[in-house]
Amino acid sequence: MNPRPIGIFDSGVGGLTVFRAMERELPRERLVYLGDTARVPYGSKSVDTVVRYSLEATRFLLRQQVKLVVVACNSASSVAIDRVEQEAGLPVLGVIEPGARRGAERSRSGRIGIIGTRATVGSGAYERAVRRINPSAQVISRACPLFVPLAEEGWTDDEVARAIAERYLEPFRRAEVDTLVLGCTHYPLLHDVIAQVMGSGVDLVDSAESIAGQVRERLRDDPSLAGAGSGVDPHRFYVTDAPEPFQAVAERFLGRPIQNLEQVRIERD
Amino acid sequence: MNPRPIGIFDSGVGGLTVFRAMERELPRERLVYLGDTARVPYGSKSVDTVVRYSLEATRFLLRQQVKLVVVACNSASSVAIDRVEQEAGLPVLGVIEPGARRGAERSRSGRIGIIGTRATVGSGAYERAVRRINPSAQVISRACPLFVPLAEEGWTDDEVARAIAERYLEPFRRAEVDTLVLGCTHYPLLHDVIAQVMGSGVDLVDSAESIAGQVRERLRDDPSLAGAGSGVDPHRFYVTDAPEPFQAVAERFLGRPIQNLEQVRIERD
Repeated sequence: MNPRPIGIFDSGVGGLTVFRAMERELPRERLVYLGDTARVPYGSKSVDTVVRYSLEATRFLLRQQVKLVVVACNSASSVAIDRVEQEAGLPVLGVIEPGARRGAERSRSGRIGIIGTRATVGSGAYERAVRRINPSAQVISRACPLFVPLAEEGWTDDEVARAIAERYLEPFRRAEVDTLVLGCTHYPLLHDVIAQVMGSGVDLVDSAESIAGQVRERLRDDPSLAGAGSGVDPHRFYVTDAPEPFQAVAERFLGRPIQNLEQVRIERD
Repeated sequence: MNPRPIGIFDSGVGGLTVFRAMERELPRERLVYLGDTARVPYGSKSVDTVVRYSLEATRFLLRQQVKLVVVACNSASSVAIDRVEQEAGLPVLGVIEPGARRGAERSRSGRIGIIGTRATVGSGAYERAVRRINPSAQVISRACPLFVPLAEEGWTDDEVARAIAERYLEPFRRAEVDTLVLGCTHYPLLHDVIAQVMGSGVDLVDSAESIAGQVRERLRDDPSLAGAGSGVDPHRFYVTDAPEPFQAVAERFLGRPIQNLEQVRIERD
């Protein structure tokens, strides 16, 4: 047993999809969530900058005495996971590997699509992870930068969302992929319109659910890491910009009031 | 005569519209441009965070020995201009006042629309500035968060741009405004689709051009501030993220190679 919390970091609110999946899958664990809302997004920034921000987030989580670090942000997982692992000296899990694994295992045709931010797609991290599992897979990928602001605007299921989704997803339809990995934590909010455009024959893989399953397996394999449950709402939330907008989104998204939310500075940590 | 440069800062590349207008209007001035590309955008962030970033940008420009500071970012101009002025101890000009002035002067009906980021619109800065000039003006405003990523994606004149513009601009058509202030440096890139949706009776005010005119007037009124021209490509560009993407956008936008571009750190300045 290990009573220390699990740390989760993301560039902003999107990682709450990971938080929610982990809370559901791991009810005996305390979670510490850090959203770098003062510097969001990461997905349009350079590798060096995303690495620097990820290391600063990791150092903050280490000071919260976490026992394991989950990199909920696809962009950070794509380009910074090795550096985070070196820095942490603890188990570190990112969202790329479990998302790629689930995609590779579910695809029957071996034609797999990946959508994500510019940083994630530019890194090629999903392609490499898919090919490690299925070397003959045909992987195509595309950055969809309008999907995040679309989800944040709440225009998730109307003619604007549909027109944007049709344009971004056209190459995947043409390539007849049977599996599409939603390689950004915001994209599950657009699940319905993406499913409509891709059609019922295409499996959509949610990286948030995949990572929660992988953390559960990791704790099962290594019981000295597992928690024992504790108290009412034991989780903590930290953000780098003002807490109010985060609180509103988080409460709507999690469907309950959240406590223990605090603004912190992490630059140059 | 004053040979020191004029400093311009923006959250990213959008302020290049201001840079370009100033270069055109003020050919005898050296310009120093700072784009805070590692933390872009400002428009979705809190007042405190935008103030902090603006002060850090200002301190950086002061170290470059500027004689005047232009806040090219509408979000920063909306919420941080007074603090920047205090910090700088130099003349400081933002984009709100000249954009509002031009809007108020051009409108015949007194019904004026303002579009911008959430920070800009939420601040009410344009409304206050318009009403100082025309107290009986009817001002309506709306945040258009998808316009920036749309412009950055280059989807500026097609059916997706049109569908988004129609949705955002519907209240302005209904209110029969005769003037619409483009209160974000990116929006002039969407000028054509906005003009199409609003129709030919509506005047679009570009805040970039308005501010350049105001700086020119300021230098004319105070000749001790004016420059005397100097050398070939005397301008300098600084960014806080990797220079390459900025360079590509800037060269496309300015229509010439840019020199003197450097990455810098400004946090906690």
